[in-house]
Amino acid sequence: MVTAQDCAGALAELRQRVPLVQCLTNIVVAQWTANVLLAVGAAPAMVDNEHEAAEFAAVAGGVLVNLGTPYADTSVAMAAAATAATSAGRPWVLDPVAAGALSWRTRLAHELLEVGPSVVRGNASEILALTGGAGGRGVESTDPTEAAADAAVKLAEQHGCVVAVSGPVDHLTDGGRTVLIANGHPWLTRVTGVGCALGALMAAFSAVTDDRLVAAAAATATLTVAAEPAAAASAGTGSFAVALLDRLTTITPAELAAGVRLR
Amino acid sequence: MVTAQDCAGALAELRQRVPLVQCLTNIVVAQWTANVLLAVGAAPAMVDNEHEAAEFAAVAGGVLVNLGTPYADTSVAMAAAATAATSAGRPWVLDPVAAGALSWRTRLAHELLEVGPSVVRGNASEILALTGGAGGRGVESTDPTEAAADAAVKLAEQHGCVVAVSGPVDHLTDGGRTVLIANGHPWLTRVTGVGCALGALMAAFSAVTDDRLVAAAAATATLTVAAEPAAAASAGTGSFAVALLDRLTTITPAELAAGVRLR
Amino acid sequence: MVTAQDCAGALAELRQRVPLVQCLTNIVVAQWTANVLLAVGAAPAMVDNEHEAAEFAAVAGGVLVNLGTPYADTSVAMAAAATAATSAGRPWVLDPVAAGALSWRTRLAHELLEVGPSVVRGNASEILALTGGAGGRGVESTDPTEAAADAAVKLAEQHGCVVAVSGPVDHLTDGGRTVLIANGHPWLTRVTGVGCALGALMAAFSAVTDDRLVAAAAATATLTVAAEPAAAASAGTGSFAVALLDRLTTITPAELAAGVRLR
Repeated sequence: MVTAQDCAGALAELRQRVPLVQCLTNIVVAQWTANVLLAVGAAPAMVDNEHEAAEFAAVAGGVLVNLGTPYADTSVAMAAAATAATSAGRPWVLDPVAAGALSWRTRLAHELLEVGPSVVRGNASEILALTGGAGGRGVESTDPTEAAADAAVKLAEQHGCVVAVSGPVDHLTDGGRTVLIANGHPWLTRVTGVGCALGALMAAFSAVTDDRLVAAAAATATLTVAAEPAAAASAGTGSFAVALLDRLTTITPAELAAGVRLR
Repeated sequence: MVTAQDCAGALAELRQRVPLVQCLTNIVVAQWTANVLLAVGAAPAMVDNEHEAAEFAAVAGGVLVNLGTPYADTSVAMAAAATAATSAGRPWVLDPVAAGALSWRTRLAHELLEVGPSVVRGNASEILALTGGAGGRGVESTDPTEAAADAAVKLAEQHGCVVAVSGPVDHLTDGGRTVLIANGHPWLTRVTGVGCALGALMAAFSAVTDDRLVAAAAATATLTVAAEPAAAASAGTGSFAVALLDRLTTITPAELAAGVRLR
Repeated sequence: MVTAQDCAGALAELRQRVPLVQCLTNIVVAQWTANVLLAVGAAPAMVDNEHEAAEFAAVAGGVLVNLGTPYADTSVAMAAAATAATSAGRPWVLDPVAAGALSWRTRLAHELLEVGPSVVRGNASEILALTGGAGGRGVESTDPTEAAADAAVKLAEQHGCVVAVSGPVDHLTDGGRTVLIANGHPWLTRVTGVGCALGALMAAFSAVTDDRLVAAAAATATLTVAAEPAAAASAGTGSFAVALLDRLTTITPAELAAGVRLR
């Protein structure tokens, strides 16, 4: 139901419209996230203070709320931005980093979920934690991909959003439809912030694509298809990160359509 | 009135004296800014907490105050550092990121302007916002370079500082004299924090050059002249950023004088 | 007493066990530190808020507390994490960045020292400042390496920890034993955060090595041995940083044992 041509079309649209993406993200990946957005053709704006977060969310093309390093003040800004985006009808993405493993952010994630994100993106443990599962350690003894795939559908239905589970094969669902994407490279887990940047890309694509599942799939496809030649040309994780930005700069919609492995 | 030899001399002086540059900057570009300063030959110190900012500004060679991601506590530190630098006669640079587009930081920028920066660096919209213009969206419908060039002269005269407007052609003025620099590459706008790093370089050059217009011009020339061969050797924005640091490490005063296009 | 084989064995152990390393570090180097840990084979987690820092320190393999950019809230988190790590018997590393040069963080460093770090890592000035020496400027007129070597032994004896003094030749001691490591390249001081990442590596190696002096030595050896071919293959500090991550990804225990120059 989501096709390679849908992904290619979304990338072409993004390049033409240069969406403004507000990122409330963590101190570890802020630079990397901005550079990924710039490379692919979007315009990042890292406005994450409590005085301006809501003001900007009302005019941004899309908003990312990432719980990687929340603080007292930025967590207030995140709630304000999410609320303003929802009120203004702007799409926003929730990335509940380490939900289930740490208590404060798990509570923040649940509160943000109630505000109504357009897309929730996480790994299997994080998605399971949001559906009231054991979270964190409990996941280790089961097949995380299968377990999270069911949880993702449930979460999507409950909250009327797209849920994207990142992994060797990415699972994306809006409750009714499910898309699997089987691109990527193991080094994607050896560079910090790749998942965080994927959340930002989903906000960027959501700004130019009404179908949120297509937006999330196009973001995932763009990042993971670009990663394959980048890894092949690299001597380690340092040059891989550099080459990934290079490929994101140059990848064409046609190359994306030809490279993506959708199921 | 500012010559290529002035720029080359300033770079030679910087390399010899290794100025200590205090940066109160944003979470997105802190690492990149430090690496740009280290590459060119300066010594960065990112002291931006309210307990130590003023203490350090009194002994730093130059200070950068950048409003990219201000928070309640760091904005207090910025005001304290600016005041301490002015009191101690140390040069400091104000980079009013997104002034005009967001209300809280626009007020912060005006307050900092009253403290007396040595150099103000921004894009056309930001400089226009500081002169009470419509700011942000209002700029889009006019010729930003021309409009900001006049605003820059007015701002420089009012506050007795150098004003640098970044763009395809950089405009720098101290009110009486104006310098245009026509180097660079479009990819400079596709790597986050290039403008922010330019502000930091202006603080570094101001620490070793009494003539603030020469300092600002030398900083602009060094960054944009280095960008040209870096872009020519790169496959995308990732390798461009790496090559730019490499060129900043190795560019000689003679290469700078030969490459800069001053008007 | 610490051999090249000890270092190689520690690296093999780290690669096999993938230790979880909590980093409470500064905004400048957070991304770089995470990427260094990921490259070498550890799992970084940058949990530095006051709500979760202690909760996580009790389960982390090792903890880094780095004073590069302390704020009111993160300094509370640092004290909480250090206390929780000590209580839970987890190793933790103190990196007292700029102790002696700035008053607030010097006090924080002394308070953290009383909590009982496993390893203290700094440059000569910082280590001297912790032993009540003149600190900062006072150091400049003496031979810093010699002066700090004596201070390091004293500090290690007083606090029952390993003290590592970074420099052209690294000095590491647990009071009774002293190890010198003579690898590296001058460009290590031209990339921001190399010392900070070394502290993080010491936390990672401490998580898998009971002998803290071996852990600190293995971390130092891994980083500085990897730096040599990385520098040889680089055109400046930008490509050096990338190549260093690449070498950390690929360096084998055998290459480490063959390359390290221990005394």
